[in-house]
Amino acid sequence: MPEIYFISLKKISMKVCFFFLLFVSTITWAQDPSKNKSAVVASVDKHQKELTHLSDQVWSFAEIAFKEAQSSKVLADYAEAQGFSVKRAVAGMPTAFTAEYGTGKPIIGIMGEFDALPGLSQKAQPTKDPLKEGAAGHGCGHNLFGPGSLGAVVAIKELIAAGKLKGTIRFYGTPAEENGGGKIYMAKAGLFNDLDVCLDWHPDYENKANMQSSQAIIDLLVEFKGKSAHAAADPWNGKSALDGAELFTTGVNFLREHVKPSVRMHYVYRKGGNVPNVIPDEASVWIWIRDSKRIGMAEVEERVRDIAKGAALMAGVQYDIKVQTGDYELLINETGAKALQKNMEWLGPITYTNEEILFAKKIQKEAGIEETGMKGEVKPLEKTKEDPDGGSTDVGDISWIVPEITFLGTTAPYKSPWHSWVVVACGGMSIGHKGMLFASKALATTMVDLFENETLRKDIRAEFEKKKGNNVWKPMVPDGPPPVPKQ
Amino acid sequence: MPEIYFISLKKISMKVCFFFLLFVSTITWAQDPSKNKSAVVASVDKHQKELTHLSDQVWSFAEIAFKEAQSSKVLADYAEAQGFSVKRAVAGMPTAFTAEYGTGKPIIGIMGEFDALPGLSQKAQPTKDPLKEGAAGHGCGHNLFGPGSLGAVVAIKELIAAGKLKGTIRFYGTPAEENGGGKIYMAKAGLFNDLDVCLDWHPDYENKANMQSSQAIIDLLVEFKGKSAHAAADPWNGKSALDGAELFTTGVNFLREHVKPSVRMHYVYRKGGNVPNVIPDEASVWIWIRDSKRIGMAEVEERVRDIAKGAALMAGVQYDIKVQTGDYELLINETGAKALQKNMEWLGPITYTNEEILFAKKIQKEAGIEETGMKGEVKPLEKTKEDPDGGSTDVGDISWIVPEITFLGTTAPYKSPWHSWVVVACGGMSIGHKGMLFASKALATTMVDLFENETLRKDIRAEFEKKKGNNVWKPMVPDGPPPVPKQ
Amino acid sequence: MPEIYFISLKKISMKVCFFFLLFVSTITWAQDPSKNKSAVVASVDKHQKELTHLSDQVWSFAEIAFKEAQSSKVLADYAEAQGFSVKRAVAGMPTAFTAEYGTGKPIIGIMGEFDALPGLSQKAQPTKDPLKEGAAGHGCGHNLFGPGSLGAVVAIKELIAAGKLKGTIRFYGTPAEENGGGKIYMAKAGLFNDLDVCLDWHPDYENKANMQSSQAIIDLLVEFKGKSAHAAADPWNGKSALDGAELFTTGVNFLREHVKPSVRMHYVYRKGGNVPNVIPDEASVWIWIRDSKRIGMAEVEERVRDIAKGAALMAGVQYDIKVQTGDYELLINETGAKALQKNMEWLGPITYTNEEILFAKKIQKEAGIEETGMKGEVKPLEKTKEDPDGGSTDVGDISWIVPEITFLGTTAPYKSPWHSWVVVACGGMSIGHKGMLFASKALATTMVDLFENETLRKDIRAEFEKKKGNNVWKPMVPDGPPPVPKQ
Amino acid sequence: MPEIYFISLKKISMKVCFFFLLFVSTITWAQDPSKNKSAVVASVDKHQKELTHLSDQVWSFAEIAFKEAQSSKVLADYAEAQGFSVKRAVAGMPTAFTAEYGTGKPIIGIMGEFDALPGLSQKAQPTKDPLKEGAAGHGCGHNLFGPGSLGAVVAIKELIAAGKLKGTIRFYGTPAEENGGGKIYMAKAGLFNDLDVCLDWHPDYENKANMQSSQAIIDLLVEFKGKSAHAAADPWNGKSALDGAELFTTGVNFLREHVKPSVRMHYVYRKGGNVPNVIPDEASVWIWIRDSKRIGMAEVEERVRDIAKGAALMAGVQYDIKVQTGDYELLINETGAKALQKNMEWLGPITYTNEEILFAKKIQKEAGIEETGMKGEVKPLEKTKEDPDGGSTDVGDISWIVPEITFLGTTAPYKSPWHSWVVVACGGMSIGHKGMLFASKALATTMVDLFENETLRKDIRAEFEKKKGNNVWKPMVPDGPPPVPKQ
Repeated sequence: MPEIYFISLKKISMKVCFFFLLFVSTITWAQDPSKNKSAVVASVDKHQKELTHLSDQVWSFAEIAFKEAQSSKVLADYAEAQGFSVKRAVAGMPTAFTAEYGTGKPIIGIMGEFDALPGLSQKAQPTKDPLKEGAAGHGCGHNLFGPGSLGAVVAIKELIAAGKLKGTIRFYGTPAEENGGGKIYMAKAGLFNDLDVCLDWHPDYENKANMQSSQAIIDLLVEFKGKSAHAAADPWNGKSALDGAELFTTGVNFLREHVKPSVRMHYVYRKGGNVPNVIPDEASVWIWIRDSKRIGMAEVEERVRDIAKGAALMAGVQYDIKVQTGDYELLINETGAKALQKNMEWLGPITYTNEEILFAKKIQKEAGIEETGMKGEVKPLEKTKEDPDGGSTDVGDISWIVPEITFLGTTAPYKSPWHSWVVVACGGMSIGHKGMLFASKALATTMVDLFENETLRKDIRAEFEKKKGNNVWKPMVPDGPPPVPKQ
Repeated sequence: MPEIYFISLKKISMKVCFFFLLFVSTITWAQDPSKNKSAVVASVDKHQKELTHLSDQVWSFAEIAFKEAQSSKVLADYAEAQGFSVKRAVAGMPTAFTAEYGTGKPIIGIMGEFDALPGLSQKAQPTKDPLKEGAAGHGCGHNLFGPGSLGAVVAIKELIAAGKLKGTIRFYGTPAEENGGGKIYMAKAGLFNDLDVCLDWHPDYENKANMQSSQAIIDLLVEFKGKSAHAAADPWNGKSALDGAELFTTGVNFLREHVKPSVRMHYVYRKGGNVPNVIPDEASVWIWIRDSKRIGMAEVEERVRDIAKGAALMAGVQYDIKVQTGDYELLINETGAKALQKNMEWLGPITYTNEEILFAKKIQKEAGIEETGMKGEVKPLEKTKEDPDGGSTDVGDISWIVPEITFLGTTAPYKSPWHSWVVVACGGMSIGHKGMLFASKALATTMVDLFENETLRKDIRAEFEKKKGNNVWKPMVPDGPPPVPKQ
Repeated sequence: MPEIYFISLKKISMKVCFFFLLFVSTITWAQDPSKNKSAVVASVDKHQKELTHLSDQVWSFAEIAFKEAQSSKVLADYAEAQGFSVKRAVAGMPTAFTAEYGTGKPIIGIMGEFDALPGLSQKAQPTKDPLKEGAAGHGCGHNLFGPGSLGAVVAIKELIAAGKLKGTIRFYGTPAEENGGGKIYMAKAGLFNDLDVCLDWHPDYENKANMQSSQAIIDLLVEFKGKSAHAAADPWNGKSALDGAELFTTGVNFLREHVKPSVRMHYVYRKGGNVPNVIPDEASVWIWIRDSKRIGMAEVEERVRDIAKGAALMAGVQYDIKVQTGDYELLINETGAKALQKNMEWLGPITYTNEEILFAKKIQKEAGIEETGMKGEVKPLEKTKEDPDGGSTDVGDISWIVPEITFLGTTAPYKSPWHSWVVVACGGMSIGHKGMLFASKALATTMVDLFENETLRKDIRAEFEKKKGNNVWKPMVPDGPPPVPKQ
Repeated sequence: MPEIYFISLKKISMKVCFFFLLFVSTITWAQDPSKNKSAVVASVDKHQKELTHLSDQVWSFAEIAFKEAQSSKVLADYAEAQGFSVKRAVAGMPTAFTAEYGTGKPIIGIMGEFDALPGLSQKAQPTKDPLKEGAAGHGCGHNLFGPGSLGAVVAIKELIAAGKLKGTIRFYGTPAEENGGGKIYMAKAGLFNDLDVCLDWHPDYENKANMQSSQAIIDLLVEFKGKSAHAAADPWNGKSALDGAELFTTGVNFLREHVKPSVRMHYVYRKGGNVPNVIPDEASVWIWIRDSKRIGMAEVEERVRDIAKGAALMAGVQYDIKVQTGDYELLINETGAKALQKNMEWLGPITYTNEEILFAKKIQKEAGIEETGMKGEVKPLEKTKEDPDGGSTDVGDISWIVPEITFLGTTAPYKSPWHSWVVVACGGMSIGHKGMLFASKALATTMVDLFENETLRKDIRAEFEKKKGNNVWKPMVPDGPPPVPKQ
């Protein structure tokens, strides 16, 4: 579920937004950005064409979760060609890989996604028109995500190779973000355990160092099994699984009064009977439960489990609850975000040509949103809200294993609806490319800090440890291998 | 619950009614009614004034369930004055009594009710006008029931006293029929155990030997206990007992698809919260479950109990189910009913004066029903329906202990709504009195058969044993003493 | 929906069953069955091989509703080859046809079905094994239905051709009985208007002249349209179509208390949302409403329509109710049934070989039902129940246009579950064939009566007119052409 | 509904943001508190005994809403005795009155409540023990509220009389706060229209200048009317009003997903049927709807009205929605609150004796809360939360007519549960008295500012006008006179 980003982008009406220019950073910052920073910026510029090409390739492959064979391959091949040591098909997923360079500590990681969304095929043009009817498309901008992150690690690799930085840089090719929780399975395999800091980024319609958490979520499939009977002839001999499902959702709706305002519960019917004259012996409800914190979510989950049990009793049927996946809330690392913010501010705004602005306004018009064009400027650092806006991500889980810093970079017109043709269109042309290259630079310069500045790493770690407390990360995905579909 | 009668009266549209003139009765019947029969008819005529006076006294006392002190007293006193041996305050109920005459077998019993209904006070006139605003009234005709039965036993007593009949006659003063199940507590005390046959009758708008069963019923109070909280400030700290109650009834409504067409379930809210801003910590639902047979009802009861448990789980609250009372279905004794039918036919129709017919039509007009007047004729014996019309009675329990014969006698205009002022009005004047005296005669003549005809008693008992099978009567009322209210 | 038959077969516990040997038929019956009757029996025997071959062809084609191209063709071709005048693709359905012979009145019709059921492929053997995995199969025995009826009309045609009978015989090839209501569209096209009497039969596990009605039914699709929103981010901006659907079904469940015991309502969810994080903007419920009579059903339908409207109001969404199809209750023609019964009794029982009985018992064992073998005897005429058992058929509609006589013939072991592999297996071997040939004979002999006996036709018509009253048949299917799927 | 106070007291976990000493007040404040302030403090001290006596009288009268005859009288009499011009029985309420002194502008008002709560009788001791079983008690501290406000106006009156202040001081004796919305009817009568500023206070467990709004609320009675029928005999002839009520609440529970997190909806059943065997023809639900703003509440109210309409359609019954009362959200006047805060800080903390602290701890122990004793200090000014905690008050309405300043004063141990015996106990002894006298002083000193400082009045008015915008106050109570119960 990548929807956290969708949300953070979409929901501009973030009523809080207190700016924090007052506090004096305790993090030391070189008076002038180091030469290494200038070097990584130059590196990204140098590889611009290759990165853009990679992005366009992944954009045109448009492969969905767990099926990103070509996308994964071009990225891994490029990393290998750049001198990285690549491990493919890690953690039981054919399209998951890591690419590493350097030795010893610190070890700085970054994640790159590359899966597309079904049904969103679209040409790189400002009017809606599928490239191939019914095919998938990069409606979440993941074609930019992978290459953008890769651009950053290549820049760092060159400094390590030149002896300018010491330690290890590692790229995580993380599949199935949209559906499957690929990162969680990589985390279960221990692949993040030795990192000092991890970074990631996500396409957005604003540039910011992310300061907002995401909601913890659990994804449950609640299945009921009853007994068929002819609904006209002897309905009294049937036990309706559908009754079980309906009573379950009714119970959930009654529970809404008694959960905190930050809780979200939403469901659909997976199975709701076949034909009216047969009392359904199978029915199922797919439900997601969220709250700002995993602990709050877990309390509600317990109640929902009781409701399922109660509904089954009521309908006289059997029930089963399958945990399908689940994400932790994102643990914000403010120290890391501030470091990122400084680099973003130094890199200055993304600027757009008149053509790009017209393209953006045209697309906004088509999408029925205000024709405000592009937001290339760097937004001031936000204050973390008490409760995040609605949305969840599997980056949340990683943030409980290692301090996580997230960059959000403009790749689409202001207020673009995410998971839509609009994002696909911009991701396939210069607006998307510019955001991606800015991401590479923002991430690489921040990595320079992380390599150079041990105090920064310690401060980041200290904040992480304090926020994490003695919580132990327990992945919410079911035991067993990742749900990779069979070929 | 006397509603069985209410129903049998009200629901004329009894679609079945096949008449059975074909079969040859195996019951021998004296070519001419015995002299004893003429004697009991004469006895009832002789005591007409006293019986009418008793009825009018009980009518004017209009005492409700368990509070029938005066009504019980005048009936018991009369029996005593007639030479009966009276036991008062039996079975833990101050107003229950038995009155017995004679010795040895056979022992023939009859029941007499005398409790009124709250709020039905009405003058003995054809327009609605309470005798005393807000007071009780005999809307079910029980003022006639007790004296009518007493008239029959007095007639039999005189024959026993004269040596014309041998055995014992016993009158049961059965309180609290409308609310409390007085007969069941008398039965629990073993008071019906030694009877050969038991009779009863009930005011109606037709004359018939009852061939219709009644529904078995269980009366449950389902109570939920939760936890209060301020409904605006912290509803998430509350557990709503009202949610429990509402989910319970929702479950019951979903169950309706899966019960047989003969099942009835109906409920009201006893407690549904006090004030909106407090999450209710108490709520309760009063529910009745019925089916044609106790066994079918018991199956549904199990499901309803599971629903209560499920609802409590759903709402996160506690629950408790209190059995308040319950009636068995009435076991029809066709052999007995046929014997009664013959006597009814011999006694011929009840005839009415012009004044009575006008009174009846006036009352029908006032009550908004067709002005058809009185039905004094004796109806042919009906066929027992597969499923009885809706209604239950505690006579049902007695019918599982001893063969039961029920007479229904016209005491109100055709299609009168029972439990209404109409029934009160007619019960206080000649229309009611005529029905009562006809009841005394029909019951007494049938008792003559029962005393005289051992074969008939054997046939009745054989049918009873066959229908009862190896079922053992287990009263459904809660353990402990009858729910007599404290003074 | 052919389920009426399924039901009549399945529900042996028909509590009523009054036998009527008493009444003296007013229908004159030739002391000895006419020579014409012997002739039609001989004709069926003569064509036995061809009819069996036709049945086996249709059995192996196993074509589902509206796609019965080959099945329809072989039957129509056979009729044409026998000298019938065939009209193909009538009433807007490519597989509907009529085959007629003779001229003038009376005109006697008979229906023949030939559609299979999806997923029921099975070999003609007593253990479950699909002929072709996943393919369709004749689980309702319609492969026998078409040829069996055809055998009867061929026999009659020969008598007309020989001048032994006068009038017209017409066969209706009625497609899509299982799903689509083919007969209703043929009736809308007026194809039954000139008939004197119509016959049909259906495979069953007993031989009887059908005396039981079927339930009137209406098949509705209730669709809700709301507004999507992100279920975690801004659920308050969404209007849930699924809420509409759930509130609708809740309302239906609350209604159950307030419909007569003969009413049946049952539903499934067609659309219940896609993914939990999107407030569903579309949801739909597929519901069937039935009652013993169309008028009762129509009253309930009105209530259900109000419930849909109320649910839409509650959820703040739009709704639409589509009538998909609907059947009238079957108007039983007792006069016709008695005529059929006499012929059945004359034809005597179907007898089975030891091999067939072993086959039947083996199949009963496999299906988990009592090993009682075959019921080849002719059952006494039943009494029509006040309320039919649950089930509906589009033959019901025809029975309001023309007097209808239905034969039920044994083609499967006693108590076989209909719409199952068991019926497919027997339909493809001698047990099925025997039932089909008996059907041809029972129908043809009854047709002889109908041609020969004007009084009988008049009596049948008089009963029909009396029962029909001044009701005018209004088909419940939607306006427009039949729902024939596009190729 | 006085529950706002209950809430603000109870909910200490107010996660959001206190402190704001940073900003420099634009309100001018005399370097030294004026001599007039010292004078009002002295005046309160001078009248201490009388005020305490008044409080104790009202405490012992313990009269509930609209029945505060004696309480109203002693307060009005005291005002009159102090030279105020008193108008009794204003705005159609026998116990409402105003007491005024002085002439001309400015006109400063203050409100005083005096109604008790049913069932809360309690002695002035630290263990639970009713003064009179079942009687009312001052569980919300209104016995202190009236006299405390009166103490303030008496002090101001003396300064006006002495020529030290110019203008008019007015006391509003506001009845029926707990149930009835007395203030709203006084406001409808125009009694607040000429005020410059209005003040009020409320007993609490902390001392603060209130900066928190309250929720807008509407109080609805939703009544359903159906048609009775015997629930066992012919439930299909009934239309259940209770079904209407239950479907209504079900709809409300489904709506919860689609309202903002700040919305609260809660209900109880007023009528839920009488006896199970009668289909209820009457049922009603009492529901309160709240949101942070009236406009948000009004949107939800529209949806709830549709749900009631939909439920009635579903159940086939009639419905009616009665608006019983409703409150506006409280419009916070920060300028006024700051002025109050300064005076509170000048007046310093309330100090307690060891006996009082022991009394407080004892009561905390009895009530099962932490034994933290009393909080006499003045709390720093809070920041207004985006959404208030749950609770509503009819002071809200006044705050849309005239700028309102609310003082909250400690009269009970820390975290005392409001509307409980604890508050009654403390209100009848020195802890309550001390809080009341502090209230008199805090309010009177602030009034001095309001009389002396025209700029302050202007700033307060300007903030009021700005926040109010062009909204026009429309009382939500029904048309017609106040709901004063008949004697």
